[in-house]
Amino acid sequence: MGGMNGGTIGIVGGGQLGRMLTLAAKPLGFDVVVLNPTPNSPAAQVGAKEIVADLYDTDALAQLAERVDFLTIEIEHLDAGTLEKLEKLGKPVNPSPATIKIIQDKLLQKHLLKLAGIPTADFTEVNGHDDAVAALKAFGGKMLLKSRHGAYDGRGNRLIAKPSELAEAFEYFGDSPLYAEAYVPFVKELAVDLARSTTGEIVLYPLVETVHKNNICVEVLAPAPVNGREAKNALKIAEQTAKLLKGAGVFAIEMFLTKGGKVLVNEIAPRVHNSGHYTIEATPTSQFEQHIRAISGLPLGKTDLTVPAAVMVNILGERDGPLELMGVEDVLALSDTHLHLYGKSPTKKARKMGHITVTANSLHKARKKAKKARSKLNI
Amino acid sequence: MGGMNGGTIGIVGGGQLGRMLTLAAKPLGFDVVVLNPTPNSPAAQVGAKEIVADLYDTDALAQLAERVDFLTIEIEHLDAGTLEKLEKLGKPVNPSPATIKIIQDKLLQKHLLKLAGIPTADFTEVNGHDDAVAALKAFGGKMLLKSRHGAYDGRGNRLIAKPSELAEAFEYFGDSPLYAEAYVPFVKELAVDLARSTTGEIVLYPLVETVHKNNICVEVLAPAPVNGREAKNALKIAEQTAKLLKGAGVFAIEMFLTKGGKVLVNEIAPRVHNSGHYTIEATPTSQFEQHIRAISGLPLGKTDLTVPAAVMVNILGERDGPLELMGVEDVLALSDTHLHLYGKSPTKKARKMGHITVTANSLHKARKKAKKARSKLNI
Repeated sequence: MGGMNGGTIGIVGGGQLGRMLTLAAKPLGFDVVVLNPTPNSPAAQVGAKEIVADLYDTDALAQLAERVDFLTIEIEHLDAGTLEKLEKLGKPVNPSPATIKIIQDKLLQKHLLKLAGIPTADFTEVNGHDDAVAALKAFGGKMLLKSRHGAYDGRGNRLIAKPSELAEAFEYFGDSPLYAEAYVPFVKELAVDLARSTTGEIVLYPLVETVHKNNICVEVLAPAPVNGREAKNALKIAEQTAKLLKGAGVFAIEMFLTKGGKVLVNEIAPRVHNSGHYTIEATPTSQFEQHIRAISGLPLGKTDLTVPAAVMVNILGERDGPLELMGVEDVLALSDTHLHLYGKSPTKKARKMGHITVTANSLHKARKKAKKARSKLNI
Repeated sequence: MGGMNGGTIGIVGGGQLGRMLTLAAKPLGFDVVVLNPTPNSPAAQVGAKEIVADLYDTDALAQLAERVDFLTIEIEHLDAGTLEKLEKLGKPVNPSPATIKIIQDKLLQKHLLKLAGIPTADFTEVNGHDDAVAALKAFGGKMLLKSRHGAYDGRGNRLIAKPSELAEAFEYFGDSPLYAEAYVPFVKELAVDLARSTTGEIVLYPLVETVHKNNICVEVLAPAPVNGREAKNALKIAEQTAKLLKGAGVFAIEMFLTKGGKVLVNEIAPRVHNSGHYTIEATPTSQFEQHIRAISGLPLGKTDLTVPAAVMVNILGERDGPLELMGVEDVLALSDTHLHLYGKSPTKKARKMGHITVTANSLHKARKKAKKARSKLNI
């Protein structure tokens, strides 16, 4: 503990989020230790010390806690119970394990939102085939069957449009507890990154649009191209949601904008989030620095856009095999284009290998250039 | 070699400059190896691999070269002869060892500038007491006696105002080869960071004012508060100077602005430089990313100011002893204030422990806030 300067941050998970948290923590004077299932994690490559163990390894979690002053996470699919015990032993854990526990269970998460009067898609628990058939009928013939736990980037979601599709879906999910959500014919997906300090202060980043393909985020547009009323409403709902959460840190609120202009909360992420990577170049305080500030009791930083527009595109792996990176020179030949590679190898289809952020005078220009930049890269 | 993604950068020296180069290199897909005389260098703390050896250790330099694709430096006081040999064996070394050799010898450097018609203070070689007395007379009774080699941050400079001060100065310098420079009663010190690509393209960063105290840089003001004619002249001279240099990378040109509005080149630094730290927050491409781009043959990035004003203040150690950092929370409570700690321990009087950059709508506001921020910190 103690660290080289200001203290030591412990992160459960050492992927790209842990890496960017580490890059932000070091200049503020923190040491970083990550717990990661494989060695030479993206975070370790930028100077985080590393405990190599399964994220559910109770001993490894205790060992991590012992070595650090502040404990946090880069992934919500982990052993929240153990984190809760560590918190009770006096170790600061943020976000609160109680919040992580609720968010881990998407059905519980939805109940929490509903109870607070926050608009969401209709949902219901599903215990078996009969529940599912009833839900499909109640939701007008189109719904998502979802695993309650452990799913992200669309893994663990099935779109159901007729009862005959249910058998295959139940086989796919196996024994996982499930719930169903009414299908929302949204026109846009929106997100707001926000931070809560240890004293309960909340700051919101700008509203962004997220664009998904095959359930994976591929593009983020800041600010979201929506009208003023929609933006105001989405930010208000995000703030209401933030007030339900316990503990400090950055959270992301993912939302749907419906055809009728209604905003529904889709999901809460209790951590720094892909929808907030643009904040590195486009705001005074990146979401990563903000999270480090929040969990260590430092004051929160400013969150306004410092450029007219920013667009982030993910760099997803294009094939399976050893890394053969090509085209970096063509990407960097484009002005105001910022490359962030995560140091992952091998490359895998749809694996998040890095991202590119472009700033510009308009969203249109930023988007065009970001797509061009992405097209130059082979990975 | 090869690196995790794009290749491996080797840096001779792993101090704060090597650290910030590493922080910039990693997201572009490079691995980094540094050669540093002590373990756990500032660069190693952010993920550079480390060879611990003296910077003049020929075997260690060869070992470094063998492990990397691109070799560079963060300090010019090193074994340029060995670098030249490595370059001849086919390893890309930037900046060119030939340029480093000339810059290492401040007298040679001055001759190079004079030969090219670039204005400098008058200077002359000094071999013994008689030369010094003659120089003092020729320079109007006030001069700097300087060591030709191995001096920076004012170490190795003596101001001489009367012949009776020479004996003590000669004792101080011992056997070091010396030269003398006319004392320039400057009104400001200026600097320009610039980059040369492997193809000889040159880009200039904005002109800045550097403020020194006890011969150490304490403050950098961007843009320099000078009139248009002075700025134009200084940038022109910096560009002329850049054209004399060989090899790729970032260089800094330090200059004097005299009472009469003349600009004289004081010194060339063949590397990223303290006067350019503000580029991290205030330009689209930091000098560190720019250097990595330049030495690896990638296209250079934009260098214009993206904010009206930026001020950098150095965080110099205030005492000798183990690090006890205090006041980080007060620094971060100030908006648009960016803290960069270097991970050094112990603290030492006048040791460069970190820096703070503040951006603002005016130089006056940035300067005021930067001073306030620095005053909050104890180190």
